[in-house]
Amino acid sequence: MAAGHASRLINHGPTVLVTSRDGTRRNLMAAAWSMPVEFTPPRIAVVVDKRTWSAELIAASGMVGLCVPCAAQADLCFTVGSESGRDLASAGTDKFARHGIACFEGPVHGLPMVEGCVAWLEGRIIVAPDERGVDRNGHAAQAYDTLFVEIDSAQADTRVFRDGRWHFDADNTDLHTLHHLGAGMFAVPSRIVRGRVLSPDAPRG
Amino acid sequence: MAAGHASRLINHGPTVLVTSRDGTRRNLMAAAWSMPVEFTPPRIAVVVDKRTWSAELIAASGMVGLCVPCAAQADLCFTVGSESGRDLASAGTDKFARHGIACFEGPVHGLPMVEGCVAWLEGRIIVAPDERGVDRNGHAAQAYDTLFVEIDSAQADTRVFRDGRWHFDADNTDLHTLHHLGAGMFAVPSRIVRGRVLSPDAPRG
Repeated sequence: MAAGHASRLINHGPTVLVTSRDGTRRNLMAAAWSMPVEFTPPRIAVVVDKRTWSAELIAASGMVGLCVPCAAQADLCFTVGSESGRDLASAGTDKFARHGIACFEGPVHGLPMVEGCVAWLEGRIIVAPDERGVDRNGHAAQAYDTLFVEIDSAQADTRVFRDGRWHFDADNTDLHTLHHLGAGMFAVPSRIVRGRVLSPDAPRG
Repeated sequence: MAAGHASRLINHGPTVLVTSRDGTRRNLMAAAWSMPVEFTPPRIAVVVDKRTWSAELIAASGMVGLCVPCAAQADLCFTVGSESGRDLASAGTDKFARHGIACFEGPVHGLPMVEGCVAWLEGRIIVAPDERGVDRNGHAAQAYDTLFVEIDSAQADTRVFRDGRWHFDADNTDLHTLHHLGAGMFAVPSRIVRGRVLSPDAPRG
């Protein structure tokens, strides 16, 4: 799939799994806070708490993976959002090994892509040096934990995303995306409504 | 409702209506791209194309409103995302008047809050001057159309949001939030799943 479809993968606000790798160190975390910021080139913003192990690996490598988990992975998603990769690293392991989470390598950067997810993106942290060489994106990272990312690869499970859009049907409910309400409760977008453009005189419901 | 619950209102990625007012000029637009960035103080990021009439009014006033529309408003939501407030202003009108969109005034800044929505927020654009007096948030606005906003008021319809979380039930489906898939198709989160924390040895589905 073209990376140009990247925005459509997270346009509707799903929780994502943020993956990172620096050499042999790797991690994943759940992130409810991400959004596209640009169609072309495909760019997104994602919030990663600067104190986390993920933030450290992302800063060291300059790369970040985003995987879109599905309803069948609600437990996995909540679990990896509830424990610290740093603590596990100190004990010589990681969340992938601890929970038997299978991955494949991202096609461009080799980032961990979680099997069973329904979409996978790889990107680079955007650095924007000013005339003094200071990164103008550093402030958003420091003040708001917000990273701006340019997407280099985007893939999706064609059972639920094809022709540039999600197809959430009654026959693929386990593949629907997760939208975190808080405290481990996720809303799943299982109903579709179509908006029509109203003429000025049309009655409104 | 405490503004401290603001993040929960958009945590699950709904499309929002961005409202703006500068003197007698006012506008609203649909925005699929927003996210919380901080719990306390409550802060969010929202993407507003810098070429739009909304961006001009927001920059002039320093204020922005966010309303969370519901399934019953899919047509309204798609419609206001499909026309230009600037064109209407040139003709001496606006989207509110054109479509008979009723509003109440936000309690802190008096921003237009759209009736029939299920949550309403008001905020201020965050300005972060550096030692030279240059706004460090200006780059995100310029390069990524991303505005950082501190929330000053947050309200919700208690039929669907109470006790700090959304309650999407079978008896309030018209009040469920809209999540834009593209081209006027919205997913509606009508199913809830609960994530459990897995022990390392637990079998995974």
